[in-house]
Amino acid sequence: MTLPTEQDGTFVSAELYAQVQQFYAFQMNLIDERDAERWADTFTEDAVFQEASRMDPLHGRGAIRTSARANADRFLHSGVQLRHWLGMLQVRQEPDGSLRTRCYALAMRTPTGGELDVFVSVVCRDHLVPADGGWLVAHRDLTHDSAGK
Amino acid sequence: MTLPTEQDGTFVSAELYAQVQQFYAFQMNLIDERDAERWADTFTEDAVFQEASRMDPLHGRGAIRTSARANADRFLHSGVQLRHWLGMLQVRQEPDGSLRTRCYALAMRTPTGGELDVFVSVVCRDHLVPADGGWLVAHRDLTHDSAGK
Amino acid sequence: MTLPTEQDGTFVSAELYAQVQQFYAFQMNLIDERDAERWADTFTEDAVFQEASRMDPLHGRGAIRTSARANADRFLHSGVQLRHWLGMLQVRQEPDGSLRTRCYALAMRTPTGGELDVFVSVVCRDHLVPADGGWLVAHRDLTHDSAGK
Repeated sequence: MTLPTEQDGTFVSAELYAQVQQFYAFQMNLIDERDAERWADTFTEDAVFQEASRMDPLHGRGAIRTSARANADRFLHSGVQLRHWLGMLQVRQEPDGSLRTRCYALAMRTPTGGELDVFVSVVCRDHLVPADGGWLVAHRDLTHDSAGK
Repeated sequence: MTLPTEQDGTFVSAELYAQVQQFYAFQMNLIDERDAERWADTFTEDAVFQEASRMDPLHGRGAIRTSARANADRFLHSGVQLRHWLGMLQVRQEPDGSLRTRCYALAMRTPTGGELDVFVSVVCRDHLVPADGGWLVAHRDLTHDSAGK
Repeated sequence: MTLPTEQDGTFVSAELYAQVQQFYAFQMNLIDERDAERWADTFTEDAVFQEASRMDPLHGRGAIRTSARANADRFLHSGVQLRHWLGMLQVRQEPDGSLRTRCYALAMRTPTGGELDVFVSVVCRDHLVPADGGWLVAHRDLTHDSAGK
């Protein structure tokens, strides 16, 4: 399955754009607060999560939950607060109503009593599908800038 | 007075979301441009400003103005340009029309002729109340990531 | 030609605000993907691009294209991925329908296999004019925080 990387510069409605912004704010907050279970619930049952620089693809909500739980526990025990920022969001709606999004992501961490470290820049490409008046991630592809072209 | 930390993943309207985004862009610009007086005017007369890692709570617009004026003068005299970025904004509307917001904040500084330093990551929780077609901050709570859990 | 630096804290519509957010996400992505030609096409034929800390003003789309092409080639050959983030966006609409915008910008870079470096904070002031259902930059002024007051 491939995700288109191109956006054409056309605009979606403010209503749709603000929904996606709010979805991401909600979703990133869940992972940063180490709520792996509710984080996993923002993906479809058969979601695919790809982050080639870090790991093999995760297939399905269960695998995403297990991976998130392990990461959350690791950060909790090490006393490090993680934050994920998304920005420069582009949204395109498909004829079937699903969304192709592309945005930049920054990950940063602060140890308790320590200094902020903004440590990685990533491009996030999602396929979002409608669910219960909101959205779920059906496919996420994260490409680290350090991976080069 | 406590501020809820939970957001439930529901969406406010694009109109409301864009208003809050614009309010914060306006407000942060005021403090970064060292306009302590107009900054203070974006808070209610009886606003409470909490930033536990840095200081005792400020009670009332006058105290917020005095504190902001002192900080602004300090940065002006040291030749340091401060910037506050907010992101990952969540907004929930209360039955009384007021807003509970939660967002991430980054503070960064650049000395004249010097290097950018992104130095702190904070979670900002606000209670916003409507005023004159815009919004005022009635309560702000800033939690530094370095404070730990 | 001067650009007003003041914003008055009034709000534009969500529809307009979301359009400008999407325009910038599209435009920054073009330069970060080193597509200098499509980047230049987001400026008017007679656009002026000012970045006093770095260079003399560029006059016209052709000059903007040539400069962008040279920069893109330089980053491509050095194996560095550049990213431009905009945030804290303020938009004001003029009586003629054009827009005065003001936002913060961060530039960051990641060498292939290397570490992220968030290296500069800038204030971006644009004059945007409507074109074909979208927007074009007629005037851009970039002020580096390191330039001082």
